[in-house]
Amino acid sequence: MKRYEQLADEMGEQVRNGSLRAGERLPSVREVSASRRVSPSTVFKAYYLLEARGLIEARPRSGYFVTARTAKPRAEPAANAAAEQAQSVAVSELVFQVLGHARQQDLVPLGSAFASPALFPLAPLARSVGRALRRLDPWRTVEDLSPGSETLRRQIALRYLAAGSSVDATEIVITNGAMEALNLCLEALTQPGDLVAIEAPCFYAALQALERRGLRAVEVATNPRSGVDLASLRAVLARYPVKACWFMPNFQNPLGSLMPEERKRELVAILAERGIPLIEDDVYAELYFGRHRPLPAKAFDQRGLVLHCGSFSKSLAPGYRVGWTAAGRFAGEIARRKLMSSLATALPSQEGISDYLQQGGYDRHLRQLRHTLSMHQAKVLRAIAKHFPPGTRVTQPEGGYFLWVELPGSINALQLHRLALSQQISVAPGQLFSADQRFASFLRLNCGHPGDRRSEQAIKTLGQIARSLAEGEAR
Amino acid sequence: MKRYEQLADEMGEQVRNGSLRAGERLPSVREVSASRRVSPSTVFKAYYLLEARGLIEARPRSGYFVTARTAKPRAEPAANAAAEQAQSVAVSELVFQVLGHARQQDLVPLGSAFASPALFPLAPLARSVGRALRRLDPWRTVEDLSPGSETLRRQIALRYLAAGSSVDATEIVITNGAMEALNLCLEALTQPGDLVAIEAPCFYAALQALERRGLRAVEVATNPRSGVDLASLRAVLARYPVKACWFMPNFQNPLGSLMPEERKRELVAILAERGIPLIEDDVYAELYFGRHRPLPAKAFDQRGLVLHCGSFSKSLAPGYRVGWTAAGRFAGEIARRKLMSSLATALPSQEGISDYLQQGGYDRHLRQLRHTLSMHQAKVLRAIAKHFPPGTRVTQPEGGYFLWVELPGSINALQLHRLALSQQISVAPGQLFSADQRFASFLRLNCGHPGDRRSEQAIKTLGQIARSLAEGEAR
Repeated sequence: MKRYEQLADEMGEQVRNGSLRAGERLPSVREVSASRRVSPSTVFKAYYLLEARGLIEARPRSGYFVTARTAKPRAEPAANAAAEQAQSVAVSELVFQVLGHARQQDLVPLGSAFASPALFPLAPLARSVGRALRRLDPWRTVEDLSPGSETLRRQIALRYLAAGSSVDATEIVITNGAMEALNLCLEALTQPGDLVAIEAPCFYAALQALERRGLRAVEVATNPRSGVDLASLRAVLARYPVKACWFMPNFQNPLGSLMPEERKRELVAILAERGIPLIEDDVYAELYFGRHRPLPAKAFDQRGLVLHCGSFSKSLAPGYRVGWTAAGRFAGEIARRKLMSSLATALPSQEGISDYLQQGGYDRHLRQLRHTLSMHQAKVLRAIAKHFPPGTRVTQPEGGYFLWVELPGSINALQLHRLALSQQISVAPGQLFSADQRFASFLRLNCGHPGDRRSEQAIKTLGQIARSLAEGEAR
Repeated sequence: MKRYEQLADEMGEQVRNGSLRAGERLPSVREVSASRRVSPSTVFKAYYLLEARGLIEARPRSGYFVTARTAKPRAEPAANAAAEQAQSVAVSELVFQVLGHARQQDLVPLGSAFASPALFPLAPLARSVGRALRRLDPWRTVEDLSPGSETLRRQIALRYLAAGSSVDATEIVITNGAMEALNLCLEALTQPGDLVAIEAPCFYAALQALERRGLRAVEVATNPRSGVDLASLRAVLARYPVKACWFMPNFQNPLGSLMPEERKRELVAILAERGIPLIEDDVYAELYFGRHRPLPAKAFDQRGLVLHCGSFSKSLAPGYRVGWTAAGRFAGEIARRKLMSSLATALPSQEGISDYLQQGGYDRHLRQLRHTLSMHQAKVLRAIAKHFPPGTRVTQPEGGYFLWVELPGSINALQLHRLALSQQISVAPGQLFSADQRFASFLRLNCGHPGDRRSEQAIKTLGQIARSLAEGEAR
């Protein structure tokens, strides 16, 4: 990260945490240059960046000021209690009913699970695929089955190292996206009827995976900012014979929560004490808005009990279907199950990504991507603050591209979803995100489509629908 | 197929079935030209082709003669009785032990499941991938999840049509190779503990799939030439609550058997009467040596009960991981399960194959591939006849690239496998191909590596090992 970016991040954080308040004047370029011992041009660049992010604004002949928000930012939702009781899962039907619509391009995709494909370097990737396939040794097509391309596994291991954790290439199994990795982990760790601890709320695909394997879910409470509630986890583990946990410590879907490092360390310790494996879904980690990639829980794992699942789909190559798991002591078992279930991961995709990583453009692309996503998140948050009814609460995640919105009163999100759909807007109603469908007045909104000019208007429309529903409730 | 190829096939068949005997003189070019009403050049070309296939030879100034075999061709193995009793499956460990070695390039790959990658048009395919990705609409990366690329599904539907069966593009789901398709079918049709009817012997991956899902197998008897024994199937269905059948009517792995059309029709009728779905693994069908692609059982299905699984891995694009199932009434369910298990199939692979098919080179490639494989099969059969001990029996499949060899006496194929491995030769011992490991004196040999100069010597070495084991038995 360049010095000016670092400076911008620091000052941005002061704006976010209120040390610098709306309307307040920022110190002059000369002052900052002197106090920080950086060149004036570094300060200028940092201020330009903060301006681009919508956090500060220049006033002619007066200097830079913290942007006056057009509306008071919304409070965050409260912590989520957990059902803390085992239950069978049957959410799939609802998920398909609701998301069956979510792939039509004429909808504003606020309910989508995907960021805009325009954010990814698909043209350079295509060149990489072509180049890699031209020089491919044909024997690789029958020899690189499972665990997958050795070169790519080494490159992934290097990225772990660069991010501060240490993973050996031999424990990595390349999969058909993270989704396959997560399913294989679940399969290796559980038998039908077993209990798996999940977060409340949690990603509906995790619920579907449990349902598909005939597993029972036991929910653990979460905090929308800091993720898994360890007291709740301890209570659950004391009460139930949990076979595995499936958590997202970094930028959880749908909360966007980020577990602090210390909490991750403790999570790993709690589970290690009981010998319970953790399936760590970490597909959004590269989309951090802070200074560093947050460590995975895997970084604290000393017993090979954390099965860390990653993917290039959210950060580089949507549609290529390249994910992986660094599965610790379960790596051999997972590689076998991969062989049995889908034999191998597509070689053109593996080779293309491997070539792209070798070309060295990945980190530059990621910086750009994070910048774009964080700016757009701020924009969508402002729009929500402006248009949604009073009492609305919303998360402010430090990465990823989801917002978790709590609607006031008892607005039914499924009802809102249906009304929104009639206005060509998709949303993901909270009912999808727990086994007992109890997040009924929540929405997950996608803020990963910065190029979509319809989004401000769509937020406004959603706000109107929410207001009308709230009034209906009040009557 | 060109006229001369047709003629060559007809005369080749006469050699194979003994109408034309070894050493017998073939009719002159003029005679054939007159009787068949084809040009002399067509006859010449047919004779050249038969000569290339090793079936006939030119003798200077005397004309063409049926090749005198250096050794009497081996008899075919007898029909296989079935266990015809339900049993749990636990063959995986053995499969991994035995085949763990099978991917090392320094082995002669007679135990491999793959044909030589040199047989496939990987360079034109690479160009197709590059071209397709350059013009790819980025939105396809998030919209083409399941059931997969519509263009590709239409192209596959057209190929069904051209081959004489009718499948609607809407019932096709693209998968990560046929292996995923087969697993998804199994998942859609069964619950753990259920009974599935399979062939004896059958492909070990089918056994592994059953094992993985906790299913029980009930074996149906087969004939090494004509496949599933319908009387045995009827007996099995009368006795057991079979939830699904998993058969390979075309060029079964490992038998190479081909069910005659009438038998396929009857198979479908038997199952339709009882409402039992058929998972039809048909990945070798394009590798036929006869005149036409054999029809799938699916062609006779009127109730949507046949889930036909195909792939480009064996015929065009190894390593690309593009397969599919035309799943009849189960298509919607399979598409959902695909979404839940691995979300989507890699787009670069789908798009590349789609572009390649559009370019029109596929059928030309297939003609060449079939020709090469049939010639090499004849060569390997001659080598087996020459080098293996008396009493050896071997199949002569009309397509695919497997031979199923029955060793004389009670030679243990696992023992032979171990001795062969010490000579840098892999084989697939018969124990892998049934739930109760009873094909203990059988081998599956791969004859899909025509470019491997070591294969004749390897067959000779195998023959020597077999002889020494037979003598050991006799003592």
